[in-house]
Amino acid sequence: MTIRVTVWGENVHEQKSEVVAGIYPDGMHGCIAAALNRAEGIEAGTTTLQDPEHGMTAERLAQTDVLIWWGHAAHGEVADAVVERVTEAVWSGMGVIFLHSAHFSKPFKRLMGTPCNLTWREAGERERLWLTSRNHPIAAGLPDHFELEYEEMYGEPFGVPEPLETVFVSWFQGGEVFRSGLTWKRGAGNVFYFRPGHETYPTYHDANVQRVLQNAVRWAHNPARRIADPTAAPNVPVETALEPITERGPKLHKAGEEGLR
Amino acid sequence: MTIRVTVWGENVHEQKSEVVAGIYPDGMHGCIAAALNRAEGIEAGTTTLQDPEHGMTAERLAQTDVLIWWGHAAHGEVADAVVERVTEAVWSGMGVIFLHSAHFSKPFKRLMGTPCNLTWREAGERERLWLTSRNHPIAAGLPDHFELEYEEMYGEPFGVPEPLETVFVSWFQGGEVFRSGLTWKRGAGNVFYFRPGHETYPTYHDANVQRVLQNAVRWAHNPARRIADPTAAPNVPVETALEPITERGPKLHKAGEEGLR
Amino acid sequence: MTIRVTVWGENVHEQKSEVVAGIYPDGMHGCIAAALNRAEGIEAGTTTLQDPEHGMTAERLAQTDVLIWWGHAAHGEVADAVVERVTEAVWSGMGVIFLHSAHFSKPFKRLMGTPCNLTWREAGERERLWLTSRNHPIAAGLPDHFELEYEEMYGEPFGVPEPLETVFVSWFQGGEVFRSGLTWKRGAGNVFYFRPGHETYPTYHDANVQRVLQNAVRWAHNPARRIADPTAAPNVPVETALEPITERGPKLHKAGEEGLR
Amino acid sequence: MTIRVTVWGENVHEQKSEVVAGIYPDGMHGCIAAALNRAEGIEAGTTTLQDPEHGMTAERLAQTDVLIWWGHAAHGEVADAVVERVTEAVWSGMGVIFLHSAHFSKPFKRLMGTPCNLTWREAGERERLWLTSRNHPIAAGLPDHFELEYEEMYGEPFGVPEPLETVFVSWFQGGEVFRSGLTWKRGAGNVFYFRPGHETYPTYHDANVQRVLQNAVRWAHNPARRIADPTAAPNVPVETALEPITERGPKLHKAGEEGLR
Repeated sequence: MTIRVTVWGENVHEQKSEVVAGIYPDGMHGCIAAALNRAEGIEAGTTTLQDPEHGMTAERLAQTDVLIWWGHAAHGEVADAVVERVTEAVWSGMGVIFLHSAHFSKPFKRLMGTPCNLTWREAGERERLWLTSRNHPIAAGLPDHFELEYEEMYGEPFGVPEPLETVFVSWFQGGEVFRSGLTWKRGAGNVFYFRPGHETYPTYHDANVQRVLQNAVRWAHNPARRIADPTAAPNVPVETALEPITERGPKLHKAGEEGLR
Repeated sequence: MTIRVTVWGENVHEQKSEVVAGIYPDGMHGCIAAALNRAEGIEAGTTTLQDPEHGMTAERLAQTDVLIWWGHAAHGEVADAVVERVTEAVWSGMGVIFLHSAHFSKPFKRLMGTPCNLTWREAGERERLWLTSRNHPIAAGLPDHFELEYEEMYGEPFGVPEPLETVFVSWFQGGEVFRSGLTWKRGAGNVFYFRPGHETYPTYHDANVQRVLQNAVRWAHNPARRIADPTAAPNVPVETALEPITERGPKLHKAGEEGLR
Repeated sequence: MTIRVTVWGENVHEQKSEVVAGIYPDGMHGCIAAALNRAEGIEAGTTTLQDPEHGMTAERLAQTDVLIWWGHAAHGEVADAVVERVTEAVWSGMGVIFLHSAHFSKPFKRLMGTPCNLTWREAGERERLWLTSRNHPIAAGLPDHFELEYEEMYGEPFGVPEPLETVFVSWFQGGEVFRSGLTWKRGAGNVFYFRPGHETYPTYHDANVQRVLQNAVRWAHNPARRIADPTAAPNVPVETALEPITERGPKLHKAGEEGLR
Repeated sequence: MTIRVTVWGENVHEQKSEVVAGIYPDGMHGCIAAALNRAEGIEAGTTTLQDPEHGMTAERLAQTDVLIWWGHAAHGEVADAVVERVTEAVWSGMGVIFLHSAHFSKPFKRLMGTPCNLTWREAGERERLWLTSRNHPIAAGLPDHFELEYEEMYGEPFGVPEPLETVFVSWFQGGEVFRSGLTWKRGAGNVFYFRPGHETYPTYHDANVQRVLQNAVRWAHNPARRIADPTAAPNVPVETALEPITERGPKLHKAGEEGLR
């Protein structure tokens, strides 16, 4: 079964910055999608902020098994209606991977319910990622640590909920650490945050980073049929209760009435 | 040290329903606050939806160590600005307890990042709560199980994130189960969800339920000084890095520039 | 890739009790293995307590991707050396599924580090399992709830560590609840506990239970190469440190010395 | 209420190594206990490996609210019966804090159910601990990071179960990281692991480390009455079932019979 991936790229710095355009002539999203398409069983396409509805139409989301999100300069330009649509797709079972500065993207903050803040420094320093969960599927084929010679620093405390699992922790040359690979589940959707990927460095050309992304796509993919209405809160009538009960006591709701929301 | 509690009551059915007004002549919030005020070291007041800014002013939140929230009929009438203010107060360290139908309240959904849905039936059936985390502080002084003869049924699957701890699981006469006591941390704030409390039954007059609420207030209270700006994402200049590093590589940000959000 | 499963059966009551022998003429292990062999991509064999080394030789464990363990009457007869071997296999990456009364088996208690106790009643009462984690892979193809008309009751509090995920919670006719599907990771190995399966009832002939077991095998399987020495604690010599450091300060260990254990 | 702490010291290197004896003339346990006794509401004593039953008699454990354990050279000399006694005391509600090389102590490995392994280097390098859970009670009064100029390196992957919470992560000068403050619950007992404390450096004289230990004692303390028999698995007779049920189906156990273990 092929896993259908959509890589969402903000695509702003690629247009404005010669440095970024030089490293990523096809956009960061294009580089990431190409890396995924080299993996067996993954078929990746791209959409960007500039597309109608940012490319995140209901149809596209329905055909996306795993969404990858990279944004930085224009989080505020993402329409709230699109954020809700993406969020509901995750709840219904779509996997999602947030990269680097997407820690402050609207869908990530929406799914976490926390500030998602951190400290940062753009100095081209060395980052070394350490595996903290041995043989985790997201680390398949990777050594216990790998390095990125040039990266932006992100430092703790990272304002996210306790994860299901901490998969990677980063060491930075300037003295900070960061939990750089974390998993959660939201509704029926698997969520992975992966830290590296500052736009002025060639991070997404790195073989180990590409391997993490391929692994993470496979991990995040939930082959179960999507939940049709992930926010439904159905009433269970007394007549159809699994054990026979008799209605009693004072009531607020009339028979067949919808619940309050 | 006295723990300052604010009980937020929606106060709608108390005004509209004779049944509810009969059980809770001082409002559900009044009943809950009175029960808390009988406990040593807790000082509880109330505010309601109908108060200016729903009583949730910045001043009030700053003086609230633990907030308790009950709502049902009027979730949609809670102003979004108030929801954000409450959410930031939790992130800064305020404890919060959501009761019963507050599973669909705006602040709870905001903090969870999930649908928070469930199944339900209003039939006055028996609920029995079982302790699943032995000697948990929220269960202090309680037996391994206790009953509520009349309650609304809530059934699994409950659309919340995996909790830090599952403290109670409920058995229902009609055949369902529900994780009825769950803990999370959001930012610096402790969060507890407690299931019982349908407005047409005398649940908050129950001694065991009152005991849970008193315990939960003590558990949720974080005596640490509130975080002044819980969403700050400060830049760490190269010059003040903890280990000496030299800036290198291409840059996006100019010196002293604020981060992008 | 075929997943190689070994079903370990205690095989005591099948020999002593006519009731059990009547329900499971090939043993409970035989019934479970047959059900797994009907699933695509799974190849299951069996071993029992009575086999030399209980069938849990190093060779057998090396060729087992996922181990399933059922025991009840003879936990104490399992040799401690075998328990350690099984435990190390899990740490190296073998998946393991513990069934029903195996909550008190030596390997389960060894992996949990807790009492693993519960309350119980053998009265042939109805059990209803509810899904608590929507679209979890272990629940693939299953409805939100399913019933077993005759089962032994297990009640909370269940003395296990907080799980990674709670997948199922059971309702019992006599008034108890139980977290009946729980996941953990131990070393590189995935662990699943599944409650149903009292030997005097035909539980493992039930289609939904068989489906859970097939799903759980796929979930527990970690395709990564086994960790050769899962307890190694290697010294990292100063000369090979990833960042250049100079040895300094007083020392306890001589160069090249093994760590203390 | 005063929290009664027992600091268990291995007390081997203090006797054999002049370096260690010079830093800790009263033993490491003596230094730690003295630091705790300077805190309000804590009363700390010590016992050592050399005491009869290593000082861990049933009486002593019954009077210990929180146990602190430091060992390194002589893990193997700790009697298995004492390990079981300590483990049961934790299950019954005693808090426990494991320090540094106690990651390989028998009681820690027993409670974790995992290898508890790591990588290490004794080179007197700089360690910097970062807070990862804002306003966590174990970090009360501490800055977001603090340094130890001379420490032994411990590196990931650290072979422990996913914790309830990750409180601290360490940065090491030589390039490694380590999750150096982790919490779990085992039975009714709170467990904290804290990494620093190599015996040839003055770590336990450090004010920040002492603060962590004082905080951790308060966090680990569970004021609830100890569970008398933390491994009991009581039968619930049909006659006393909370909901009326009729016994049916084939049986294994006779009435009043003890469960199998």
